[in-house]
Amino acid sequence: MNGLMMDQPLLISSLLTHAERHHGEQQIVSRRVEGDVHRYTYRDMGQRVRRLANALAARGIEQGERVATLAWNGYRHMELYYAVSGSGAVLHTLNPRLHPDQVVWIADHAEDEILFFDLTFLPLIEAIASRVSTIKAFVVMTDRAHMPASSKVPNLLCYEDLIDDHTPDFEWPVFDEKAASSLCYTSGTTGNPKGALYSHRSTMLHTYAAALPDALNCSAKDVILPVVPMFHVNAWGLPYIACMVGAKLVFPGPWLDGKSLHDLFEAEGVTVSAGVPTVWQGLLAHVESNDLHFSTMRRTIIGGSACPPAMMRAFQERYDVQVLHAWGMTELSPVGTVCTLKPCHQTLSAAERLAIQSKQGRSVFGIDMKIVGEDGAELPHDGKTAGELMVRGAWVISNYFKGEGAGPLVNGWFPTGDVSTIDADGFMQITDRSKDVIKSGGEWIGSIDLENIAMAHPAVEMAACIAARHPKWDERPLLIVVKKSGQELTRDELIKFYDGRIAKWWTPDDVVFVDRIPLGATGKVQKNLLRDAHGDHLMANSGSRFA
Amino acid sequence: MNGLMMDQPLLISSLLTHAERHHGEQQIVSRRVEGDVHRYTYRDMGQRVRRLANALAARGIEQGERVATLAWNGYRHMELYYAVSGSGAVLHTLNPRLHPDQVVWIADHAEDEILFFDLTFLPLIEAIASRVSTIKAFVVMTDRAHMPASSKVPNLLCYEDLIDDHTPDFEWPVFDEKAASSLCYTSGTTGNPKGALYSHRSTMLHTYAAALPDALNCSAKDVILPVVPMFHVNAWGLPYIACMVGAKLVFPGPWLDGKSLHDLFEAEGVTVSAGVPTVWQGLLAHVESNDLHFSTMRRTIIGGSACPPAMMRAFQERYDVQVLHAWGMTELSPVGTVCTLKPCHQTLSAAERLAIQSKQGRSVFGIDMKIVGEDGAELPHDGKTAGELMVRGAWVISNYFKGEGAGPLVNGWFPTGDVSTIDADGFMQITDRSKDVIKSGGEWIGSIDLENIAMAHPAVEMAACIAARHPKWDERPLLIVVKKSGQELTRDELIKFYDGRIAKWWTPDDVVFVDRIPLGATGKVQKNLLRDAHGDHLMANSGSRFA
Ligand SMILES: Nc1ncnc2c1ncn2[C@@H]1O[C@H](COP(=O)(O)OP(=O)(O)OP(=O)(O)O)[C@@H](O)[C@H]1O
Ligand SMILES: Nc1ncnc2c1ncn2[C@@H]1O[C@H](COP(=O)(O)OP(=O)(O)OP(=O)(O)O)[C@@H](O)[C@H]1O
Ligand SMILES: [Mg+2]
Ligand SMILES: [Mg+2]
Repeated sequence: MNGLMMDQPLLISSLLTHAERHHGEQQIVSRRVEGDVHRYTYRDMGQRVRRLANALAARGIEQGERVATLAWNGYRHMELYYAVSGSGAVLHTLNPRLHPDQVVWIADHAEDEILFFDLTFLPLIEAIASRVSTIKAFVVMTDRAHMPASSKVPNLLCYEDLIDDHTPDFEWPVFDEKAASSLCYTSGTTGNPKGALYSHRSTMLHTYAAALPDALNCSAKDVILPVVPMFHVNAWGLPYIACMVGAKLVFPGPWLDGKSLHDLFEAEGVTVSAGVPTVWQGLLAHVESNDLHFSTMRRTIIGGSACPPAMMRAFQERYDVQVLHAWGMTELSPVGTVCTLKPCHQTLSAAERLAIQSKQGRSVFGIDMKIVGEDGAELPHDGKTAGELMVRGAWVISNYFKGEGAGPLVNGWFPTGDVSTIDADGFMQITDRSKDVIKSGGEWIGSIDLENIAMAHPAVEMAACIAARHPKWDERPLLIVVKKSGQELTRDELIKFYDGRIAKWWTPDDVVFVDRIPLGATGKVQKNLLRDAHGDHLMANSGSRFA
Repeated sequence: MNGLMMDQPLLISSLLTHAERHHGEQQIVSRRVEGDVHRYTYRDMGQRVRRLANALAARGIEQGERVATLAWNGYRHMELYYAVSGSGAVLHTLNPRLHPDQVVWIADHAEDEILFFDLTFLPLIEAIASRVSTIKAFVVMTDRAHMPASSKVPNLLCYEDLIDDHTPDFEWPVFDEKAASSLCYTSGTTGNPKGALYSHRSTMLHTYAAALPDALNCSAKDVILPVVPMFHVNAWGLPYIACMVGAKLVFPGPWLDGKSLHDLFEAEGVTVSAGVPTVWQGLLAHVESNDLHFSTMRRTIIGGSACPPAMMRAFQERYDVQVLHAWGMTELSPVGTVCTLKPCHQTLSAAERLAIQSKQGRSVFGIDMKIVGEDGAELPHDGKTAGELMVRGAWVISNYFKGEGAGPLVNGWFPTGDVSTIDADGFMQITDRSKDVIKSGGEWIGSIDLENIAMAHPAVEMAACIAARHPKWDERPLLIVVKKSGQELTRDELIKFYDGRIAKWWTPDDVVFVDRIPLGATGKVQKNLLRDAHGDHLMANSGSRFA
């Protein structure tokens, strides 16, 4: 027997309709590629999104067809989020930080019909326009006055012209909530990029869950600045959450350096931000060296890779900005866990609380997780035993787009490729990505722990720990370190810094100082490149201190 | 093209599984009918719920069949919530405050198979046992030691025996999320009671939405005491929300007087509570006369009928307890709107803020609302124009159980029977129930406004305003008032109190002082009874002051 409730599909268009109707006066502020600051309301946005939906329909974009973007965080990108998915087409956010070859490969694989791009990316478009096979039109996300002349891309279309040509009269279509809404590719550090094809249903459930008080805790009182790009797993869902709760949105455009961000935080009264650890390093450096503070920022969501406790301490103790550590994946839409403390943690010492906050957190409602050993058997939640993290939930993929990576699920669970522990309170902590694991004499060593210690050294700007081949122990940890500018630090000083902070045999065997650690398209350390460059470092030297 | 996401139905059992797994140590505390305080954890609860599910299966309860309860707020009732719906059966919470004839009528209409009841209700069960036609077994929610002997109800079963007879090994079945989960009847002040048949899907979406920061804002840090009964629209969803967020739950059992509640608030560190205005009156009276305060209470959710601003002021200004005014209906699962202020309200004066808080609030995400005139045309959101409130959303009924009240929807919208305004910020304010509206010389007068003014008078304990027949104006407002004990107040003093507080022609024509105002089964004023008793009051007297 079925319940007798209204049969309303969960559709992304309802987010916009709600924001227009109930938060019409709320603002969206964007630093534009054109150089100025643009400011309008959800009501204005609604009008333009419906014009844009008409423009897409007029160009023959049909339900399920892919519409690509190459764009920064800004209001026009936001408009595309809603016009494309709202119409029933699929928003495909390309990552402009990828190599042009990869962009071509992904656009072809996705069979994109049309591509919208920010002015910044004209050179990239010029490089790929003649190589992509399915894209029929390129639209510059700007107005007539800023339209570039390009001999290499014929018939560039102008975004504002498209919008001007159409009326805001558009009825959002109603369709099955399982319909595809958006397509995001993993960055491909493991093999070819693979597409996660979200549905309206999965996106809406993710939005509800991620906005909850113990998850990202977003409300109409918030002023949200997503530093995490809208081309990286939908900026962790913030463009959807903002409409659901009626928050003010502030978009930084391409300016993600410390000064630009801090200026914008202060000018717009930002209360919450979100991004990967590397971006916050620039911000903290700027704030520190200019003796600034944060007047309105209350918390920042850090994820994508492990947030070093030293960074948390700086934010929380020095600047009174709460850090919310979060874990997610492209395959999870992306939010899986958020590290919101429980009441039982309130009585802990500051150091103990920080240790909990360094964990990736507890599952948001709707995500189920477990850890398993190599035999697939479930491991205990004791906060010590590490195993592969497996997840399950309504916003986890069941397959990659076009069946790439053939059937990833194992008995209905998605294997994350992350190695983690789970404690008795349900807090999950990542010790490593399975492909980055260090296996010394048959025993695992967690590289994240080792990196966090190095990052706590005042002279260290960035540190990465890799598995270096070793004649006796198979693998031993090797530290790759970028020093802070103007700081002195020797190998021995840094190795000594581990004393008492970690089990002796976990101590890195050696340190390689470099000028730059390579970051991938989503701001994460590219350990594969580091392993290529330094993997044999310990073979050349005469062996481990612990050999 | 469909998305490629895991196909997981939204099922109520997942709430319990989550609470067990991620909040296993969190407590549920209950004042028991047996007299003592019972205390256990979500982990304990999970075990017992699965035993109970086995017991239900062993008694042949099948998917879709109705299992009735007549019970207070307590852990055994909570166990039934999860065991019944989790198994795929339908939880039917009977309202013990109804007349026995109505209980029989409803149980027959619902075709209940089995009835679980608290010891308190043995007399009621004895009165109805031989009259109900489908109930095959009566289970007393107690242990062997407290089992009553009853000659009138043969074969009473014992709850704890049922549980003891079974193991906690039970796999929650997976089924269509549209399956019915629970059945609640409206209290029937308008004709026969009608059943709202919720689904797992509607309940889960309601739970997500109601827990959001700008709705009831519940987290693992909260200690929730639902005063609103679990037999009244599922205690507004709090038994589900608590599992979703891992909050501590405190159940008051039958003791809802001011002293019992206040003692429990203080003893268990309650942070948030919820109930109808009438129950808070007793609490405030107790706190005031004993010079007490609230050490841990942060906010209280008040709904079910309009919260008088005088009550808000008392809670907020005197006791520093934030009032969250909320509006809902049985037909809405029940939460529709919550009055969480927006940032633009922060700069208002305390009086202006209170005026906003007196509104019933803005729609929680997932509920769409509009107001319409008598011709069905949509009316403006100007905060002044009043019309019938229409709602739509995934947790709004589409039909009543068994088709009673034949097809309530109007063009896909549910007509609430409430008359309200909506302002430009989306805040809805109820001026009246349409059946209680006062129509004076063709113009509407809002009875809630008139009641709120009377309630602000220090000598008034409770006030209700009804439409009294009038020879010249058809209807005029008549006040029915209960004075505070020991207070003096005359008709003329109270009428004078309206001067300057309301348009002259809205002023009530007369005041009738009574000892008691009749409350219905959900704690609301029974205006129909007041109209029966006093509707001709103004016909007897010589006419309105304004005639
Ligand atoms: N808070 C965190 N701490 C540690 N690692 C994290 C955290 N958040 C995310 N990660 C890592 O990021 C991974 C997900 O990354 P994402 O899906 O954004 O792109 P990607 O996985 O880098 O692409 P690819 O799989 O092709 O390398 C997780 O599996 C995990 O390894
Ligand atoms: N905050 C509030 N302010 C004013 N009225 C409210 C509020 N919350 C609920 N109500 C009233 O309560 C009604 C819903 O009541 P509920 O469904 O709980 O039972 P019921 O409607 O009393 O039963 P019946 O319809 O048989 O009388 C709403 O339609 C509205 O009139
Ligand atoms: Mg990945
Ligand atoms: Mg009703």
